[in-house]
Amino acid sequence: MNYRIIKNTLGLVLYFQAAFLMLPCAVSFLYREHEGRGFVISAALCLAFGFILRLRKPENRTYYAREGFAIVALAWIMLSVTGALPFVIAGEIPSFTDALFETISGFTTTGASILSDLDGMSKCCLFWRSFTHWVGGMGVIVFIVAIMPMTGGQNMHLIRAESPGPSVSKLVPKARQSAMILYLIYLILTLVQMLLLAFVGMPIFDAMTITFGSAGTGGFAVRTSGMADYTMLMQGIIIVFIILYGINFNFYFALLGTHKKDAFRITEVRWYFGIIAAAVLAVTFNIRGFYDSLYAAFHNAAFQVASIITTTGFATADFNTWPAFSKTVLVLLMFIGACAGSTGGGLKVSRIVILLRSVRQDIVKMLHPRSVTKVMMDGKAVPKEMIQGVSTYLAAYVSIFAASCLLLAIAENTDLETIFTAVAATINNIGPGLSGVGPMANYAGLTTVSKYVLMFDMLAGRLELYPMLILMIPEVWRRK
Amino acid sequence: MNYRIIKNTLGLVLYFQAAFLMLPCAVSFLYREHEGRGFVISAALCLAFGFILRLRKPENRTYYAREGFAIVALAWIMLSVTGALPFVIAGEIPSFTDALFETISGFTTTGASILSDLDGMSKCCLFWRSFTHWVGGMGVIVFIVAIMPMTGGQNMHLIRAESPGPSVSKLVPKARQSAMILYLIYLILTLVQMLLLAFVGMPIFDAMTITFGSAGTGGFAVRTSGMADYTMLMQGIIIVFIILYGINFNFYFALLGTHKKDAFRITEVRWYFGIIAAAVLAVTFNIRGFYDSLYAAFHNAAFQVASIITTTGFATADFNTWPAFSKTVLVLLMFIGACAGSTGGGLKVSRIVILLRSVRQDIVKMLHPRSVTKVMMDGKAVPKEMIQGVSTYLAAYVSIFAASCLLLAIAENTDLETIFTAVAATINNIGPGLSGVGPMANYAGLTTVSKYVLMFDMLAGRLELYPMLILMIPEVWRRK
Repeated sequence: MNYRIIKNTLGLVLYFQAAFLMLPCAVSFLYREHEGRGFVISAALCLAFGFILRLRKPENRTYYAREGFAIVALAWIMLSVTGALPFVIAGEIPSFTDALFETISGFTTTGASILSDLDGMSKCCLFWRSFTHWVGGMGVIVFIVAIMPMTGGQNMHLIRAESPGPSVSKLVPKARQSAMILYLIYLILTLVQMLLLAFVGMPIFDAMTITFGSAGTGGFAVRTSGMADYTMLMQGIIIVFIILYGINFNFYFALLGTHKKDAFRITEVRWYFGIIAAAVLAVTFNIRGFYDSLYAAFHNAAFQVASIITTTGFATADFNTWPAFSKTVLVLLMFIGACAGSTGGGLKVSRIVILLRSVRQDIVKMLHPRSVTKVMMDGKAVPKEMIQGVSTYLAAYVSIFAASCLLLAIAENTDLETIFTAVAATINNIGPGLSGVGPMANYAGLTTVSKYVLMFDMLAGRLELYPMLILMIPEVWRRK
Repeated sequence: MNYRIIKNTLGLVLYFQAAFLMLPCAVSFLYREHEGRGFVISAALCLAFGFILRLRKPENRTYYAREGFAIVALAWIMLSVTGALPFVIAGEIPSFTDALFETISGFTTTGASILSDLDGMSKCCLFWRSFTHWVGGMGVIVFIVAIMPMTGGQNMHLIRAESPGPSVSKLVPKARQSAMILYLIYLILTLVQMLLLAFVGMPIFDAMTITFGSAGTGGFAVRTSGMADYTMLMQGIIIVFIILYGINFNFYFALLGTHKKDAFRITEVRWYFGIIAAAVLAVTFNIRGFYDSLYAAFHNAAFQVASIITTTGFATADFNTWPAFSKTVLVLLMFIGACAGSTGGGLKVSRIVILLRSVRQDIVKMLHPRSVTKVMMDGKAVPKEMIQGVSTYLAAYVSIFAASCLLLAIAENTDLETIFTAVAATINNIGPGLSGVGPMANYAGLTTVSKYVLMFDMLAGRLELYPMLILMIPEVWRRK
């Protein structure tokens, strides 16, 4: 393990965190809120600690996958701890556990909250909560790689450890340029949504924060009433944009290139839209009796389906009261998740496609034992290693899921639906679950043990399991 | 597709079914019950239909995996349909759907019941219900292969399609001898349990039927009170024996051989006992407040853990009222299931071991990209194809599980716990679930659609998914 390079990179991450913390500080100036000092103190701590970490320059700048995983996992933990401090210092969330839960929920774009009275919160804290979604959505490390001219040329190890999906396709040969293009697309989408929401009459503060929550597919609201206060038009804009953020960003890259038609040939994107269309139709039909008009049922169905499959977790309706069929559809969407290479979570549509196709291939192989069959995707054969990787990912995912349910069941004596969906909603980075953690409830009532288990699940879900699992292997920490 | 050989073999299966149906017929003579005529009529129908199927001899006796799968799937459906007739003819279960549900539940050793008043049933019908467990446990086709000198030498295709587990290790080179040894071990265990139960004072009829239900890890009771009437000693004997039936039968084969120590070195068996021990301890501790003494808590914990992990489904206590932790443990055990090559269902312990070890191997590979790592089991490297097969099995299993939940959610508007555990309890061949299908409830109240979905799940679970999935592929039915 190359400890020096880890310390050095983590120091850099802390410098960036200090810069991020200046934004809510500016907001506190605008609204003349005294909670701003929490951000100044935290930023100062980040700078000091970052300086200490970067005191000794690494002699050897080469590093490998293990360092990449460790850097990313530790960076996210550090960002969460330092990001939670302002809430505690400002007194907005007195308990450190709760503040950490809220911040991890923010950075991992989960949107599971322990807060119930958002209207009483300071603007700067609300801004920071939502801003963590925006940073976490595309990834902090990807952001740093995009901006900093880092030497070593092994930045791909970092991007790979932080990016969601079974494979990271480099958009262009150089890691730094790939990261820049990703952030550029992300920035443009964010600005367009913000302007549109403001244009149709949403207050600027809400337009900014709700856009951050949409872009990162996070789901933190800024009002106690959630999304209910906004007009149908505003909600409609949000639906469209969260679906756009859930698309594999390769789609936009293809749209920008010379072969625009290729964008619509991406298997994952076709499936993603197919699943959304089928789910919206089914849920609309199922809940038509709950609303005055078929259009209202469609609107609510579309909002919830988009919100859950992209793992955003905004809620307009209390879907906990919907019929069993709609609830089952939503729970299944929780696991499917958004596209790889998007800002969404879950298992990812491409993994589902690969798994289903490998099942089909296995059946064909049983029927024709001597035939040579391949799992195809985007017109190319999927390498065997990737199929194996996706299958193992499913196994690792199910294992962490089962272990988390067991731990939660020890810590809480509640109904199984609450336990099951609390884990599902956090490991898939959605936010609200059902029953005790439904869209109109929150996570404040859980025990401290449960909260730490769910924090682990949020990080594991966002970082695609392995970086967090690798942290727990003693061998990784051994010096060579 | 070699249709002639399929018809021929199915005809043979029907002859065997006619013979099986004579047993409850004999019971009806003993108890002077007029319900016996239902079995006579059904047996006559089996003979007639079997004769028609066998009219034309197959010209070509060679067949392949696809015929093996089709024969097994169709044989099980035919056995269930003809096995359900006596219930309808005798008027004990007037609805054919319900009778079919009960019979499939019997043959697949699920033990999910639509009956509520067992004390009012005729002895011959109760005997038949339990006897289907015994036949289904080790497999009908395996039984026929053991007894009939079948030509062609491709019987391994049949045994492979019917036997549970990721691989069928032939105990001895010849398929027929393997089948005979399996049934011999099975028969001895059955006789010993029967005698022991009778010896400690259980009525002979109960001793026989409960032993059938234990041996097949089925779970049908013969009294309305379930297992509650029997003494702690009888329950203790049942606990020990269901655990024995859940062991990989290779264990007994090794015990009979010259290297007796090898039996205790089988990885799967060690894990199986480890999981049982851990689960019993954890549940005992969790439910200690529910019972007068620690021993009573231990007894009930051991009974339920053994009953669920072996997928038997006998119930002494209403575990639906236990705390969330114990319920979560039991639900996880439902999915783990018994050993491969036993009479139990579920995913099988060996699959879980292979999956967990392949996750570990994947992590090691990430840390040491150039190292050559292997998944080990029983001191040998697991072939890559088998690891891939197990992973794909998990994916197919999850897909069927999700689709079944969706269909059930359309047909029932009930709580998600009922839907989820109804599917879990049938696809894993356990019997009782939680909530609306808990140990003190039954499946009678479900809609017809749900019952057929769960029947499919029971067959898919018992036959390890693929034979049932292959039936649905049109290509399979095409003549060459």
